[in-house]
Amino acid sequence: MLQPELLDRIRSDNPLIHNLTNIVVANYVANGLLAIGASPIMSNAPQEMDELASIVSAVAINIGTPTSEQVTAMMAAGRAANRYGKPLLLDPVGVGATAYRRELVQNLLDNVQFAAIRGNAGEMATLAGVDWQSKGVDAGSGSADVHAIAKQVAQQYRTVAVISGEVDVLSDGERIVEISGGTSLFPLITGSGCLHGAVCAAFIAVAEDVLSACVTACAAYATAGEHAAKDHVGNGGFTTALLDSLARLQATDIATGKVRQI
Amino acid sequence: MLQPELLDRIRSDNPLIHNLTNIVVANYVANGLLAIGASPIMSNAPQEMDELASIVSAVAINIGTPTSEQVTAMMAAGRAANRYGKPLLLDPVGVGATAYRRELVQNLLDNVQFAAIRGNAGEMATLAGVDWQSKGVDAGSGSADVHAIAKQVAQQYRTVAVISGEVDVLSDGERIVEISGGTSLFPLITGSGCLHGAVCAAFIAVAEDVLSACVTACAAYATAGEHAAKDHVGNGGFTTALLDSLARLQATDIATGKVRQI
Amino acid sequence: MLQPELLDRIRSDNPLIHNLTNIVVANYVANGLLAIGASPIMSNAPQEMDELASIVSAVAINIGTPTSEQVTAMMAAGRAANRYGKPLLLDPVGVGATAYRRELVQNLLDNVQFAAIRGNAGEMATLAGVDWQSKGVDAGSGSADVHAIAKQVAQQYRTVAVISGEVDVLSDGERIVEISGGTSLFPLITGSGCLHGAVCAAFIAVAEDVLSACVTACAAYATAGEHAAKDHVGNGGFTTALLDSLARLQATDIATGKVRQI
Repeated sequence: MLQPELLDRIRSDNPLIHNLTNIVVANYVANGLLAIGASPIMSNAPQEMDELASIVSAVAINIGTPTSEQVTAMMAAGRAANRYGKPLLLDPVGVGATAYRRELVQNLLDNVQFAAIRGNAGEMATLAGVDWQSKGVDAGSGSADVHAIAKQVAQQYRTVAVISGEVDVLSDGERIVEISGGTSLFPLITGSGCLHGAVCAAFIAVAEDVLSACVTACAAYATAGEHAAKDHVGNGGFTTALLDSLARLQATDIATGKVRQI
Repeated sequence: MLQPELLDRIRSDNPLIHNLTNIVVANYVANGLLAIGASPIMSNAPQEMDELASIVSAVAINIGTPTSEQVTAMMAAGRAANRYGKPLLLDPVGVGATAYRRELVQNLLDNVQFAAIRGNAGEMATLAGVDWQSKGVDAGSGSADVHAIAKQVAQQYRTVAVISGEVDVLSDGERIVEISGGTSLFPLITGSGCLHGAVCAAFIAVAEDVLSACVTACAAYATAGEHAAKDHVGNGGFTTALLDSLARLQATDIATGKVRQI
Repeated sequence: MLQPELLDRIRSDNPLIHNLTNIVVANYVANGLLAIGASPIMSNAPQEMDELASIVSAVAINIGTPTSEQVTAMMAAGRAANRYGKPLLLDPVGVGATAYRRELVQNLLDNVQFAAIRGNAGEMATLAGVDWQSKGVDAGSGSADVHAIAKQVAQQYRTVAVISGEVDVLSDGERIVEISGGTSLFPLITGSGCLHGAVCAAFIAVAEDVLSACVTACAAYATAGEHAAKDHVGNGGFTTALLDSLARLQATDIATGKVRQI
């Protein structure tokens, strides 16, 4: 399941990843993708979604701070990517927080086929129709079975579900995989989840199998987080150190011990 | 007046602070709020302003880079927060620079009641109708009495006025409080003022008295700035160090010696 | 040609530079301009473009993530700057990537006179009508003569062409100047090109001769990059270090050895 060699493939192919993302993390996601070896492009202009979809390797849609023009662009980018056979990832930031976000995401899911959907437990529970106490764009807390949520999201939207958390839980609708490790500093910086989604998109861009790509992306990201957390406390230093760790990460650093198939 | 224990309350309650802010500082403000212990949400979508106002603890409106859609959202967020009794803070960035900004701010002030208004001396002088030489979004220089400006803004808009500067000057229309300390590095990084406003909003969110909240926020922020300035020169390093200092700041670090009631 | 004293003039005059730029780099460009000694303002509101043009020292237009409202603002800002005799710089990010960007840039070039145009070889080749293999917003690779491209862009648009790369190539349509140095870390962080453009605008703002201003800006930026690269690997640390280097840079650091007039 784990394919550490995908990291080398990202660095040799420099896949172009189109991110429709929010104003909070656009810089961090672009720098994170560069650090891992991919090439970011961040356009939200509806007029060029079709042409961009034809040249990029994957598209990541993140609804963190949607504008009406960007929502139009998301739909256009999604449809174009489907048409060109380019893999799409959805990051439904804060989907549990408001009706507007639920409708926006539902509309995307009704019209676009995503290769993967990445979110925290609260966001993914919302997509699965499971009751969960979310808190704005943060994960909140709930008692539902995260494995069941992952499986249901995967089946319902014919996708790979990636639930980030202390332990990441992934599912393609049949298999369930857990990735352990990472660091408790991730939730202390903004954009660590958004960058996680973009990194998944970069791995999907160079892989044959989406679940394997996401498993490897999660293990790689968790490892980079651990390395970055070693010498740094405080979110300022960690923000910088995570980019450096992603840049220094080697395929051999990504340990199989992190991955547990259920 | 100083209530250092509010810092602990922020960290135990993690108040959700809704920021309508500019594209320059959105990331920095979100990371700064996380560092202090609050939870940021940064939406500018008019469609969800009402629902967000119902779940957040405070709203901070910053006019740094307004778009027409965001201006609509600001008005909707302001009215909804007033309706739900959630405290609002206004940061009238660069209001002295153009007629467009003066009208935008006047329109907000005519329709929304703010718990606090935070700006530099030039911006606050503009709100008070006092002549001042502003320079873009920077403070500029003038000879007007900053105490008088603070008092007038507070009285005119029935709010707490927070004027940031080498010495911060606050007023609720009757009392005047000065906060000394801080660092000369603040004006050398973008967003230090915007984050100051967001930090005030976080303290207001967990306090009973707005003036005490802002006094404590200013003293806390000045202290964090001093700590960050100790080991770093250059704005790159200071940017990172300020986030770390905010994360490490303890209630006991916030000294009463910084506060002087006039 | 090299005028290191312009750096001192930036620091004494603090020229106000209006940047219409993208959501990815707005923070980094603002911090970079502060570091070099200039004052940034980042508005994209069409309503205030005229008034801002009357008070700023230079305007930099960067098309990285255009919105329809921002495109309107760009045209308004360009025309107003021309009317007020304020120098304009264009950074045609990713212009080779899509028809939408080519049309957007052509429309600007048809209606606005730019003092300088800064881009990578792929972007500038597109403006010159020369075939080049671009890759999203990255430079890509091509075999065309960069000297010829610089000269042609300069002549065709009656401007100073600044082509950034391992060696920067500049032309005013007659003279050709090369700036060597810099660091291979520049392409590993997002916004290093965008900030380069903004720094050129700051030098133009305080200079009499645009080509000399850009030559000096390129030499200053390359020097700051070298200093920053010395102690840092990984793009996280370099991002921070570049800001610090710009802040610490002295006129005497900018060596004539970097500049070669062809």
